Amino acid sequence: MNSKKNFFELIKTDSGGRLGKIHTQRGIIDTPTFMPVGTAGTIKGIFTDDIIKTGTQIILGNTYHLFLRPGIKILEKFDGLHNYMNWHKPILTDSGGFQIMSLSKLNKIDKKLGATFSSHLDGKKFLLSPEKSIQIQKSINSDILMVLDECPKMTRDKKIISKAIDTSSHWAERCKVEFNDQKNKSLFGIVQGGIFPDLREESLNKLLKIGFDGYAMGGLAVGETQSDMFKVLINTVKFLPKDKPRYLMGVGTPSDILGAVKSGIDMFDCVMPTRSGRTGLAFTWSGKINIKNSKYKNDDTPLDEKCKIRYLNKYSKSYLNHLANSNEILASMILSLNNINFYQEFMCKIREEIQKGTFDAFYEKNIDKYN
Amino acid sequence: MNSKKNFFELIKTDSGGRLGKIHTQRGIIDTPTFMPVGTAGTIKGIFTDDIIKTGTQIILGNTYHLFLRPGIKILEKFDGLHNYMNWHKPILTDSGGFQIMSLSKLNKIDKKLGATFSSHLDGKKFLLSPEKSIQIQKSINSDILMVLDECPKMTRDKKIISKAIDTSSHWAERCKVEFNDQKNKSLFGIVQGGIFPDLREESLNKLLKIGFDGYAMGGLAVGETQSDMFKVLINTVKFLPKDKPRYLMGVGTPSDILGAVKSGIDMFDCVMPTRSGRTGLAFTWSGKINIKNSKYKNDDTPLDEKCKIRYLNKYSKSYLNHLANSNEILASMILSLNNINFYQEFMCKIREEIQKGTFDAFYEKNIDKYN
Repeated sequence: MNSKKNFFELIKTDSGGRLGKIHTQRGIIDTPTFMPVGTAGTIKGIFTDDIIKTGTQIILGNTYHLFLRPGIKILEKFDGLHNYMNWHKPILTDSGGFQIMSLSKLNKIDKKLGATFSSHLDGKKFLLSPEKSIQIQKSINSDILMVLDECPKMTRDKKIISKAIDTSSHWAERCKVEFNDQKNKSLFGIVQGGIFPDLREESLNKLLKIGFDGYAMGGLAVGETQSDMFKVLINTVKFLPKDKPRYLMGVGTPSDILGAVKSGIDMFDCVMPTRSGRTGLAFTWSGKINIKNSKYKNDDTPLDEKCKIRYLNKYSKSYLNHLANSNEILASMILSLNNINFYQEFMCKIREEIQKGTFDAFYEKNIDKYN
Repeated sequence: MNSKKNFFELIKTDSGGRLGKIHTQRGIIDTPTFMPVGTAGTIKGIFTDDIIKTGTQIILGNTYHLFLRPGIKILEKFDGLHNYMNWHKPILTDSGGFQIMSLSKLNKIDKKLGATFSSHLDGKKFLLSPEKSIQIQKSINSDILMVLDECPKMTRDKKIISKAIDTSSHWAERCKVEFNDQKNKSLFGIVQGGIFPDLREESLNKLLKIGFDGYAMGGLAVGETQSDMFKVLINTVKFLPKDKPRYLMGVGTPSDILGAVKSGIDMFDCVMPTRSGRTGLAFTWSGKINIKNSKYKNDDTPLDEKCKIRYLNKYSKSYLNHLANSNEILASMILSLNNINFYQEFMCKIREEIQKGTFDAFYEKNIDKYN
């Protein structure tokens, strides 16, 4: 097993939750951590310097999107995404696999070749091999790279999932070779297996043999119930090495995150805070609210009295109700920033509670609040 | 003639340009000045605190839009628009007349009653009388109010324009009565008359008899050529009192502004910098550029190396080209802010050149650059 030493530091565990630190050349990431999603090289609707103010320590870039636009040549000209978008802290990139399944119009998986797909933008055909995925991620200059995996749509057909595991394990091995133990970069494997504990274990064992710097849970948050997802986590996480970070891809609501932290997950990413923000949904410590609702029309209180970033605490719910109902850009700007800030406060609180040994009480208090 | 004393201070004139100061309870406005347009209580795509950073000293609010949404009751609850949108510097409001002509589906002008119109949002019918327009503007709590005028579409039919002048003068008088010499607020009259010098003079003389704190040129920038507009200004401005501010409504490009300043105009408003920003157009000291053009794909220079607001000088044209072509909100945010900042730098430069007595050279250098 050939993986980075001192990459992950486990500081404390409490009621299942793990407090830790990931060390990268571009900074430390306190875990459990939430990574805002910068799909096309921008966290939608938020200035890069405001992302910093929310306490965000790492963001996610989408290989599929960045490969199509602006393209690798331009990213290489800028020595990668950090300079291009003016984000100088760590970046994790996915492999492109998930978007190929979910976004592209035609896709074909070939264990030997890779994934052939048509761009959702113009229909142009591309082949993404495991090697190519790693090469693109190197051009993006990301700090944490993910292996290319086949991520089947939610299914209970064990045969389909088994086949995906077989392909994914083979690709994971090729990714590891292509990655070639880059200094200052890390490579994560992705555990597949749907909701079946035996398949998850099989997938994991294959990855453990190859050896990665961290392990992600893939193929979740694709339509299964939250309770099914938690079951998979509990059944699988126990087999994951304790000294490596664990990443639950594409998750989720604050409640999803809370349950997953309790299962021992360290890293999360999701478009929810920004996408919700653009539709008028705001996350607050009192729960999730739809600011477009007429009950906020006369409400002169802010979303969060304590939030001084960009003077967000100076904007009343009444004003936000007006902006959101008038489709004003400023509504998306304020709500997206508020939501990312809430998510980061939520993660910060989780870390504090684990540190204090009071995580379970926090879990009980909040687990049903954000469903 | 009953109007505010010491409201406008004329400091210097140079080659037609006037350097001055408007004194309001919420701050001084250096003229010539540009007022960004906050149609629905937000300068589209820009945080209120960033507007301040561009050097903006006054913004414009649209009575028509604010009356429909969020409505007067809510604005009154917040003691007006300043608190509602967190903008504590001066606000000028138009009277609603222009939008009734340009936006609402059905409108009917009645000299006695006012303007009846159907909302462009839901078709609901409203009557805006001169009195009601002033009442709404008082509820908005604006610092500079405009009289309700009939603003006919561009026409060369003198009869139509004469009739509009007759109605507008009558309404102006009623607005003045309703305004009732508010302390700490000012009321401007609006000169109509199309492109006809005699009609402009007639309209102006009627307004001068009533007496206002400032005089606006209405019915321009409605489709006539720039040269026609400049002719009207030159022919009309000479009759305007020197000790009152002069406001050219809805204008314009930097070139329009430059020519109008040379004619002796002090105040401007236009949606151009923000509206252009949302379509990928950027104003720079080298001219106007379309950032979506493929020639910027590899351009690693910023729009303005000196602009440090929100680190705008850290974003390359290449990155902006990508964002704008990907329809990312951040493109609108950056370009709108850049454009407002450029407009304010342009106004600042105009004031400096008048101060130095070198306005004519600046005029010659820039008059053809932004057409």
